[in-house]
Amino acid sequence: MSTFSLLILPGDGIGPEVMAEVRKIIDWYGAKRDLSFDVSEDLVGGCAYDKHGTPLHDDTMAKAQEVDAVLLGAVGGPQYDNLDFSVKPERGLLRLRKEMDLFANLRPAQCFDALADFSSLKKDVVAGLDIMIVRELTSGVYFGEPRGIFEEGNERVGINTQRYTESEIDRVARAAFELAMKRGKKLCSMEKANVMESGILWREVVTRVGQDYPEVELSHMYADAGAMQLTRWPKQFDVIVTDNLFGDLLSDLAAMLTGSLGMLPSASLGAPMSNGRPKALYEPVHGSAPDIAGQGKANPIACILSFAMALRYSFDQGAEADRLEQAVETVLAQGLRTADLLGEEGKVPVSTTEMGDAIIAAL
Amino acid sequence: MSTFSLLILPGDGIGPEVMAEVRKIIDWYGAKRDLSFDVSEDLVGGCAYDKHGTPLHDDTMAKAQEVDAVLLGAVGGPQYDNLDFSVKPERGLLRLRKEMDLFANLRPAQCFDALADFSSLKKDVVAGLDIMIVRELTSGVYFGEPRGIFEEGNERVGINTQRYTESEIDRVARAAFELAMKRGKKLCSMEKANVMESGILWREVVTRVGQDYPEVELSHMYADAGAMQLTRWPKQFDVIVTDNLFGDLLSDLAAMLTGSLGMLPSASLGAPMSNGRPKALYEPVHGSAPDIAGQGKANPIACILSFAMALRYSFDQGAEADRLEQAVETVLAQGLRTADLLGEEGKVPVSTTEMGDAIIAAL
Ligand SMILES: CC(C)[C@H](C(=O)O)[C@@H](O)C(=O)O
Ligand SMILES: CC(C)[C@H](C(=O)O)[C@@H](O)C(=O)O
Repeated sequence: MSTFSLLILPGDGIGPEVMAEVRKIIDWYGAKRDLSFDVSEDLVGGCAYDKHGTPLHDDTMAKAQEVDAVLLGAVGGPQYDNLDFSVKPERGLLRLRKEMDLFANLRPAQCFDALADFSSLKKDVVAGLDIMIVRELTSGVYFGEPRGIFEEGNERVGINTQRYTESEIDRVARAAFELAMKRGKKLCSMEKANVMESGILWREVVTRVGQDYPEVELSHMYADAGAMQLTRWPKQFDVIVTDNLFGDLLSDLAAMLTGSLGMLPSASLGAPMSNGRPKALYEPVHGSAPDIAGQGKANPIACILSFAMALRYSFDQGAEADRLEQAVETVLAQGLRTADLLGEEGKVPVSTTEMGDAIIAAL
Repeated sequence: MSTFSLLILPGDGIGPEVMAEVRKIIDWYGAKRDLSFDVSEDLVGGCAYDKHGTPLHDDTMAKAQEVDAVLLGAVGGPQYDNLDFSVKPERGLLRLRKEMDLFANLRPAQCFDALADFSSLKKDVVAGLDIMIVRELTSGVYFGEPRGIFEEGNERVGINTQRYTESEIDRVARAAFELAMKRGKKLCSMEKANVMESGILWREVVTRVGQDYPEVELSHMYADAGAMQLTRWPKQFDVIVTDNLFGDLLSDLAAMLTGSLGMLPSASLGAPMSNGRPKALYEPVHGSAPDIAGQGKANPIACILSFAMALRYSFDQGAEADRLEQAVETVLAQGLRTADLLGEEGKVPVSTTEMGDAIIAAL
């Protein structure tokens, strides 16, 4: 029996609710399969600030470095909007990404058959859509120095720095090519090399890495054209690799194409640890949704599918990940829908916990 | 009779073809209405580089500063991809924007009734859509220093700088609020204040400017959520104001929602000149489309509607602008379609020049 250590950080807003359903799934796996999980739970984001005055306590950070995988719910909420920048809930998440060096953020944008009607896009544009966005996650304008708000003459100026080294680009490009090899062998890299020197270096390094993957068809696109093409005909893409900031926008856009934001997981992976497994953090793409928090309306599927990604990428349990994903398909096919997915005729409205229970039943 | 001076820069790719149709429209206005245009023509982009070794000759720059309005086609093409960054076709356009200080880029995303079926989005999501994106155009990461590719240790690093001063944010925010006052009195400002200090300053200054426009309902959104919401339900927006880089992506995304990229114009406006009119450059949102250049396939409507924006914003001829826009609606209602808009049954395929002629007939 394999034992894996898992740090759970439910965070703010709907985070705790959706994570409670994941806990049930984890317990099911512990009881019914040949797997056992050593689970600990801690605070991140606004709730950590409320307790400790920091959105991520050093002890939590240290724990995150030791476990096989971290599972995070969501951070943020309006009550924290006026906090100083350095202690905003987001800083907790960004610290985890940076200190665990999770440079490759995998964001699948997949359209579930049962939900194809739910997209704002035409059904034929999105049905069967299955693309993977690989977003660089530990560098770029999110972390570049200098940054801040400075006095200049008699006014202030806000400054951030986009910065990419060759090795930072190289490693995320490799992660993307590796994924492309396991998928459709097509990779599109997006930047603004027509305007930004950092984009020129990005394009050059990605092209160079591509020489090690002659089987992968590599293309380059300006990020604005990328936003257009994702909207026009997303199925032209297989894997997309892009920087931290473009990846933030483009992956949210891609997620929305599928019509099922409450359905989409993500994995943030770093370099292999001594046991050969990558440092890893898994989280749903949706945010903390404070407007519906605590009402049993949240869709737990994105967080549950994030655990499925953990099974696949951290615990080497591809078959168990398939099983869990299949269970999700099953409940959708049964017509069960949380509030975010309601609208069609003849569907069965369920609460957050009912959805979790149904998935366990389907397992 | 009013006389206006106009500098025409057809540029590269399909630029000259679509501009030829605009010339016909200008001639029509000169002959048939109480307007006369003093038109000169010059080079920008790759064609300027081919002739002068620079994408914008100083003489052209000087002329642009003197005229009532500049009308630009498009710049760029694959044959220029390997030019040094400093002489790439785009630098010509960026120099015009910067030296004319055209800080407010107005990009309407409007869905033409006759084309609502043509979008990749569902008809009810886009039919009647009419939003205006105001993109800051002379600052931010497009122009911030330091920038470049530098040696660092034993590798290179690509650097760009996002920089916004309070006054830069203030003036573009005012332009956006003024537009909102003339439209639906709703303004949404987009940035990443949760991650970038420049975004914090942006939000603060926009909020402050908003105190001068109490009638306008102001909201703020993170740019990634903005990309999502534009995709999910774009009609929630009236005017959007955002920075140069986010504006590049978000306006292209918004343009694509309408399904009619070949239809969308833009205006880039600066401070008022001594005659009270703003410095101004008008250009279609589409690019140089080198793949279809010279084949009579390009849609001239975006460039023609850019001239309509010139009539409205530079020449104070709102009624004439309406007339031209109405003529475009008429030919669309007649079923005339250039290649980019074909696909539906029962439409009449036309070439670039046939479309121009039809619009003149409709005038
Ligand atoms: C919460 C925020 C800091 C974060 C980001 O900007 O990266 C989020 O938008 C995401 O995409 O994970
Ligand atoms: C051609 C390019 C420099 C330009 C930009 O990035 O601003 C274009 O994409 C645009 O949006 O006008």
